[in-house]
Amino acid sequence: MEIAETIVKAREVVRSWRSRGLSIGLVPTMGYLHEGHASLIRRAKEENDQVALSVFVNPTQFAPNEDLAKYPRDFQRDSALCSSLGVGLIFHPEPLEMYPSGFATYVEAPALGLNLCGRSRPTHFRGVLTVVLKLFNILEPTRAYFGLKDAQQFFILKRMVTDLSLDLAVVPCPIIRESDGLALSSRNAYLSESERRAALVLHKALTQAEASVLAGETNSLQVVSAMKKIIAQEPLAKLDYAEVVETKGLTLVNEIVGETLVALAVYIGQTRLIDNFLWKANNK
Amino acid sequence: MEIAETIVKAREVVRSWRSRGLSIGLVPTMGYLHEGHASLIRRAKEENDQVALSVFVNPTQFAPNEDLAKYPRDFQRDSALCSSLGVGLIFHPEPLEMYPSGFATYVEAPALGLNLCGRSRPTHFRGVLTVVLKLFNILEPTRAYFGLKDAQQFFILKRMVTDLSLDLAVVPCPIIRESDGLALSSRNAYLSESERRAALVLHKALTQAEASVLAGETNSLQVVSAMKKIIAQEPLAKLDYAEVVETKGLTLVNEIVGETLVALAVYIGQTRLIDNFLWKANNK
Repeated sequence: MEIAETIVKAREVVRSWRSRGLSIGLVPTMGYLHEGHASLIRRAKEENDQVALSVFVNPTQFAPNEDLAKYPRDFQRDSALCSSLGVGLIFHPEPLEMYPSGFATYVEAPALGLNLCGRSRPTHFRGVLTVVLKLFNILEPTRAYFGLKDAQQFFILKRMVTDLSLDLAVVPCPIIRESDGLALSSRNAYLSESERRAALVLHKALTQAEASVLAGETNSLQVVSAMKKIIAQEPLAKLDYAEVVETKGLTLVNEIVGETLVALAVYIGQTRLIDNFLWKANNK
Repeated sequence: MEIAETIVKAREVVRSWRSRGLSIGLVPTMGYLHEGHASLIRRAKEENDQVALSVFVNPTQFAPNEDLAKYPRDFQRDSALCSSLGVGLIFHPEPLEMYPSGFATYVEAPALGLNLCGRSRPTHFRGVLTVVLKLFNILEPTRAYFGLKDAQQFFILKRMVTDLSLDLAVVPCPIIRESDGLALSSRNAYLSESERRAALVLHKALTQAEASVLAGETNSLQVVSAMKKIIAQEPLAKLDYAEVVETKGLTLVNEIVGETLVALAVYIGQTRLIDNFLWKANNK
C-alpha cells in the first residue's frame, strides 16, 4: 500500500494504474474510519482493480463554530485498517496541499442546499463539492463510493457529476448501524454513555416513521410531526430538522410518492447527529 | 474534421486520440471566428498533435439584459475556417446538451470578480468557469488556449486550473488587432461606421497609458485619469471602467509594479468593448 501526502505523488500512483488499464474505486473520507467506511472499501474492492482512499479533514466544509479542531483523528489506525482491507493508495494531504495560498475557486449547487443540512450549514456543501471535485481530478476514479447516511451529500454529488460532465460513477452505499440501530459516524466518539443511549432516538423516530409510511401514510406533515414527538421525549436531544424531500431537487414535499428522503438532524448534547431513510414507491 | 453535437460523440473522438497517446490543444470559443481565434488555432496546432475547438454561445455567462439573443453566429463559415486550419474536432452542442433539466452546479471564484468586468457583470465569470470546466472534462485537453483580450478571464481560469487540481496547461495568447489598432472581437460586428471609428479610442487611451508607464509613471491614479480624459473626448464613447489590478488576486493597486493589468471597458453606442495591456516590471 502506498501513502501519498502530495498531489504529485498521488497522481504518479494513479497514472501507473491507469496506464495499465486498471479501474479505480475511490473512497473519500475524513478518517477515523469505522465499519461504515470498511463497507465502502469492500464494495470498492469488489468492483474495481484498485482502491484509493483519501483521509482529509476538509476545513472548507466546517463553519467557524463547528468541530474542525476537535474532529477525531487516528491515522495509524486508519492506515492499518486500509492495509488489511487491500487498499492500494491512501491520499493523506495537509490542508495547504489542497488549499494553497491564494485559493479562490469553489463549486456550488445552491439550489440543492436550501433544505436539510444545507439550511443549518450554509457553506457546508460548497466545501464538500469543492474538495470532492479536487479528489476526483487528482485520483481519477472509475467509481466513487459514498455512504447514504449523508444522503443529501450523495444526491448533490451525483448532480455535480452530471452537471460538470464528469466521466465517473458515484455509487450509493447503505447506512451501516450498530446492533442497536445507531448509524455509524466518526462523531459518535463524542458521545458520553448517557448521550450514547439518548442517540438511539434518531433511529427510533425513523423506524416508526418508515413503518407508518409502509402502512400507507403518505402525508409528510403527519410523518414529520410523529418524528418530532419522539425526539421531544428524549431530554438530551434537541431537534435541528426533521424533513421530507424529493431526491432530484431536494425540495420539501407534502406527499410521500416516488423517491423520497425522510431525514433528521438532532443534537445529542453538543454533538450533531444525522440519520435518514430513503423511500421508493416500489418498496411497497 | 469531425463535428460533434453531443458530449458522447465528442468524448468518443477525444478518447480515440488519447488512446493513441496524442496531445490535444483546445480552443474554446463562442463562434463567429475571427483572426484572433485563428491565431489561437495555429498556436494550438503547433504545440499539439490534435486540435479541438468548441463553438458554444454560453447562456450562463450572459446576464438577462445582455446580448445573448443577438450574439452573431455563422457556423458554416466557422466550420470552413476550422477545416482550412486543420482543426480535428468541432464541438458544437445545443444549450440543453450542456445544461440539462435540473442543472444546479456552478464553479465560482467570487474574490477574483470584484473588479474589472466582474463588477459590471456579476454572474459572468461563474458562467465562464462552469462552461470551461465542462469543456475541459469533455474534451480532456493537454493545453487550452485563451486570448489575452479577455485578460481577467484568463487569470481566473488559470487560478481555477490550480485550485481544482486540473492536469492541463492554460496558455495565454497575445491580443490580435486590426491594422489601426482595434482589438479583434466578434462584437465589433455590432458597430456602425461612425462607431467603428469611435472604437479606436480604447486603443488610443491604452497606448498612451502604456507609453507613460514605459516613461516611468508608476501611479495608477495618474494613468487611469489620463485614460478617462481620452475616453471622455469621444462623444460616442461611455466609460464602463478603467482600472489597474495586480494579476494574482485581481485587486486594485495604486502602484504599477510587478505584473500589472491596465484594463478598459467602454460602451461605443450600445456595444460594450474591452481592451487592456499587461505590464511586467522586466518590460522596462
